[in-house]
Amino acid sequence: MRVSELSVESGVAIATIKYYLREGLLHQGRQLAATRAEYDDSHLRRLRLIRALLEVGRLPVAAIKQVIEAVEDESLSVHHMLGTAQYALGPTIEPEPGEEWDAARGQVDLLIEELGWDVAATAPARDELTQTVIRLGQLGLSSDLTVYAQTAQRLVTEVEMDTVPFDGPREAAVEALVLGTVLYGRAFDALRRLAHESESARRVGGVPENPSVPENVDGSGQPG
Amino acid sequence: MRVSELSVESGVAIATIKYYLREGLLHQGRQLAATRAEYDDSHLRRLRLIRALLEVGRLPVAAIKQVIEAVEDESLSVHHMLGTAQYALGPTIEPEPGEEWDAARGQVDLLIEELGWDVAATAPARDELTQTVIRLGQLGLSSDLTVYAQTAQRLVTEVEMDTVPFDGPREAAVEALVLGTVLYGRAFDALRRLAHESESARRVGGVPENPSVPENVDGSGQPG
Repeated sequence: MRVSELSVESGVAIATIKYYLREGLLHQGRQLAATRAEYDDSHLRRLRLIRALLEVGRLPVAAIKQVIEAVEDESLSVHHMLGTAQYALGPTIEPEPGEEWDAARGQVDLLIEELGWDVAATAPARDELTQTVIRLGQLGLSSDLTVYAQTAQRLVTEVEMDTVPFDGPREAAVEALVLGTVLYGRAFDALRRLAHESESARRVGGVPENPSVPENVDGSGQPG
Repeated sequence: MRVSELSVESGVAIATIKYYLREGLLHQGRQLAATRAEYDDSHLRRLRLIRALLEVGRLPVAAIKQVIEAVEDESLSVHHMLGTAQYALGPTIEPEPGEEWDAARGQVDLLIEELGWDVAATAPARDELTQTVIRLGQLGLSSDLTVYAQTAQRLVTEVEMDTVPFDGPREAAVEALVLGTVLYGRAFDALRRLAHESESARRVGGVPENPSVPENVDGSGQPG
């Protein structure tokens, strides 16, 4: 297809497609003449991935470029490629060396080891978790994250990773990982807040515990 | 204690304390003389709450003011007060009326009803979830969030709400809710990404499935 059709099919403006071509995010089409090139499904797939990284992952163009490079470099394993995308999605945490940091990091590493997880020593989420453990401790909250970790493992193993097509085109695997990480993460966060509200109603809202009671007599289920 | 001691005890600068007093976020001390006032534990507790809302919750001062008003208005139930804080923590989503929105919102409402959750019809997380369901559908991902909802419920019911002291000072309950929502949310998100990496290694990394094997021969457990 021509660039105009690629634009219609993908929903990406022609000027934007040309920008992606110049930046090397989108691979060149098959050149038919000096000003005409032919594009195919691989370009559509790539544009879908770029949009996912940009609009859902909210990654800056420089990070998108890194992810695309890992997609294009077929000498990299699918695992390495997915790791590049996953690492780009998380925040970058600067370690704060010192006793407090080392102790919290030790706690995080031990947790991951006890769970038997196969995670690189350099995974940035280890630092992110270390910072959160320190903050929890400073604020007097429990930093025992075992139940959270087991819950995350169950969700990822039993539900989430099944949405990633490991056997298809490399773009499709990365796209599914990015969309799943961000969107299911957002959904879980909203559901957790709704569960908070419901549990708070049950504990102190004065709402009858039996949900089949037809009316919420004191209206206390409406905190907002 | 005097304002200088309050500053030392709380770790909040005197100028900042005076700003909170002027803004009405911190209640006045007991006036001893024209320029001297006496502060007590209730002020320390309030400063802790303000810091939690500001530094961990990252709420703007206007939102903090709303939460503080709900804390101070003892005619409001603890449930209503916690709801005010919880609602302030989430993003504000503008509904996009139309068939797509209504269908997704119907799906969200049905999910909450089927779970038997006691959640206000006006809870903003319903809109947030609606928007995510639409996005999942547009991108061809499953919008069945039942397992996520059940998982969130289990975490909140069995672990998270136990950290909220419903019987103590109102400030303490709000503080625990805010810190728990934000910090455990952050921890879960990081753990989920680590679980992704581990599960990806297990599925495609070529790592021996038996974790007791001493060496990761091809180094593919290291995506970064």
